Amino acid sequence: MHQGSDGSLRATYLVRAAAGDVAARAEALLLEQAVELPRTAAARDPWVAAHILGRVEECRPAGDGLHRVTIAQPLATTAGDPAQLLNVLFGNSSLQPDIVLSDVELPDAAFDWLPGPRAGIAGLRALVGVTGRPLLAAALKPMGLRPAQLAALCGTFARAGLDLVKDDHGLADHPFCPFEARVESCLRAVDDAARDVGRMALYVPNLIGTPDRIMRQLDFARRAGVRAVMISPMLVGLPLLHQLASLADGLPVIAHPAFGGLLRAEEPALFGKLFRWFGADAVIFPHAGGRFSYSPGTCAALAAELRAGHPRVRPAFPAPAGGIKVERVGELLEFYGRDCILLIGGSLYEAGDSLFERTRHLVERVARTASAEPGR
Amino acid sequence: MHQGSDGSLRATYLVRAAAGDVAARAEALLLEQAVELPRTAAARDPWVAAHILGRVEECRPAGDGLHRVTIAQPLATTAGDPAQLLNVLFGNSSLQPDIVLSDVELPDAAFDWLPGPRAGIAGLRALVGVTGRPLLAAALKPMGLRPAQLAALCGTFARAGLDLVKDDHGLADHPFCPFEARVESCLRAVDDAARDVGRMALYVPNLIGTPDRIMRQLDFARRAGVRAVMISPMLVGLPLLHQLASLADGLPVIAHPAFGGLLRAEEPALFGKLFRWFGADAVIFPHAGGRFSYSPGTCAALAAELRAGHPRVRPAFPAPAGGIKVERVGELLEFYGRDCILLIGGSLYEAGDSLFERTRHLVERVARTASAEPGR
Repeated sequence: MHQGSDGSLRATYLVRAAAGDVAARAEALLLEQAVELPRTAAARDPWVAAHILGRVEECRPAGDGLHRVTIAQPLATTAGDPAQLLNVLFGNSSLQPDIVLSDVELPDAAFDWLPGPRAGIAGLRALVGVTGRPLLAAALKPMGLRPAQLAALCGTFARAGLDLVKDDHGLADHPFCPFEARVESCLRAVDDAARDVGRMALYVPNLIGTPDRIMRQLDFARRAGVRAVMISPMLVGLPLLHQLASLADGLPVIAHPAFGGLLRAEEPALFGKLFRWFGADAVIFPHAGGRFSYSPGTCAALAAELRAGHPRVRPAFPAPAGGIKVERVGELLEFYGRDCILLIGGSLYEAGDSLFERTRHLVERVARTASAEPGR
Repeated sequence: MHQGSDGSLRATYLVRAAAGDVAARAEALLLEQAVELPRTAAARDPWVAAHILGRVEECRPAGDGLHRVTIAQPLATTAGDPAQLLNVLFGNSSLQPDIVLSDVELPDAAFDWLPGPRAGIAGLRALVGVTGRPLLAAALKPMGLRPAQLAALCGTFARAGLDLVKDDHGLADHPFCPFEARVESCLRAVDDAARDVGRMALYVPNLIGTPDRIMRQLDFARRAGVRAVMISPMLVGLPLLHQLASLADGLPVIAHPAFGGLLRAEEPALFGKLFRWFGADAVIFPHAGGRFSYSPGTCAALAAELRAGHPRVRPAFPAPAGGIKVERVGELLEFYGRDCILLIGGSLYEAGDSLFERTRHLVERVARTASAEPGR
């Protein structure tokens, strides 16, 4: 349901409280988000009471001692700013142990200043020239390899037919593998591979550091010919994602979830909505059954949020990852359908000297499965 | 104990695991942090095995099904960068539900690139001209007031003798209260008050937004005469704190914990160590017994970390806040001693038209208590 037509933002929280206490708890939550004062003190100014305070809109039992509390808050509280949006959604309340941020709905006017994905699913597909099947991606690793070694891996993946080859999110600007040398070497590798196989893989470098450093990395990457980049928004700051996605001359952004273990935010809200709204073109997350704990339901909901129709925001690619085995590709295709990026990691590397063959096998398998199911 | 003399960073985690499984779990955690590959795949490169992999250093029962696992990792994995430091400490592993980041130790060499507080306790004391007692601070709120109203509050607090008057962390660059107008009005207010009472309160504006916006806000604030600023590092990105604290012409930074509800990091490690190392001069946190849930033990440990002696990093002010009542000031002085900033909020505002008298009463009480206990 598309809510928010009255111009309010709506935040839904799971609140642990006894039935007799939940109304007071919801009122306290409402006051915490914007005015951070008792109601009598906040409402001394009538304009504040009318235009800032918002209201508790719904408060219903959710089982297991939990209540689902929805607060409607004037969009004006956000100041049209991404950091302030996070603040009025889950600033102080993130520090309270009885509350989980469960969902967010924004009115259309918020997308005057929330960029959403620059390229999105269609734009990334156009960049790699692939329709009708999932994109295939692998990460360059481990940290510690030098640029020539990473470039050799990158070339192998590109020749084997992967669509994207991205840096591991732990590849920074290390003295043993400087950002600029790595980018130049890997771009050369996908270029060389393209001359051999007639198709250009997309090399996606990882930007990491302070905002100043990231802007310099972006600038270098763009001038070198990079066409998409990766960041970890929770590490570098979600507002920086917004800044990158809003640049006139920016690039598509793949978002990595590192440092995102906000236990008190449900994953579809944080990674599925906020990451997309702030501008991620594809969002990496751990698929169920790997070495992380996300349930199939969480993964499905997260993917659904990323791809959901929206009047103002392009759909973004779900990019399931995290210990995915080559053997599970059929199951993943079944689960996510074709609009996803399958990010295969360690299980390719375990092939050792047979890396090319194993990658090639994966590519062919996905192509076969997708063409056998034209309807998906 | 000051560890890390062998040049490694040490991260300690609380890991939930059966006694028979914990060694394997610790090995998996080690691999996750840097190489994110199975050991056989990572160790194919001997340089990686020797210089990147690190080792599990300790693994001992911590009661209640938990184990304390310490990993020693080469400092080189951090690339001398604050975002990458967070990544190798708690990047992917923050997404795993059986792990809490419990503690961090850094070797001295890390402070070649971690700035720590610019001013710290001594520098902030010099700015406000107060020794021998806690500093007193209040926040300007609620969101929704216009610059003239906030400036009137600011003047009242300054005349009543507060040392710092800071923006609430929810005051952004709202159209109804633009950043620049607010800063100019509040600076004028503390200036006017200083002419009357002979002592200048420190007005601390809140910077919030994308990194670009924050840099512009800082620039404006500095030119207008502001001498310290506040940010919420978890909202705007911890690496931006590092950037601000590293500027040649920057200002002291007070850090607010909003959006910091990383349940899986223990508060003394996140707010007490990382915030300080990244450059906060004072760190706001909810004191025990307010409307947040921190225990007295957590608060004491957090304050101890902020003030702990360090060969390279200045001590930073603990700034307990969060529903502190004026009536509890004696107890707080007892708890924190004199090197703290007492941040009193709603309980001053509840005084309504007697705001000046109530604030004045608070100031006198702190002065009396401190002079009665010269030894503390």
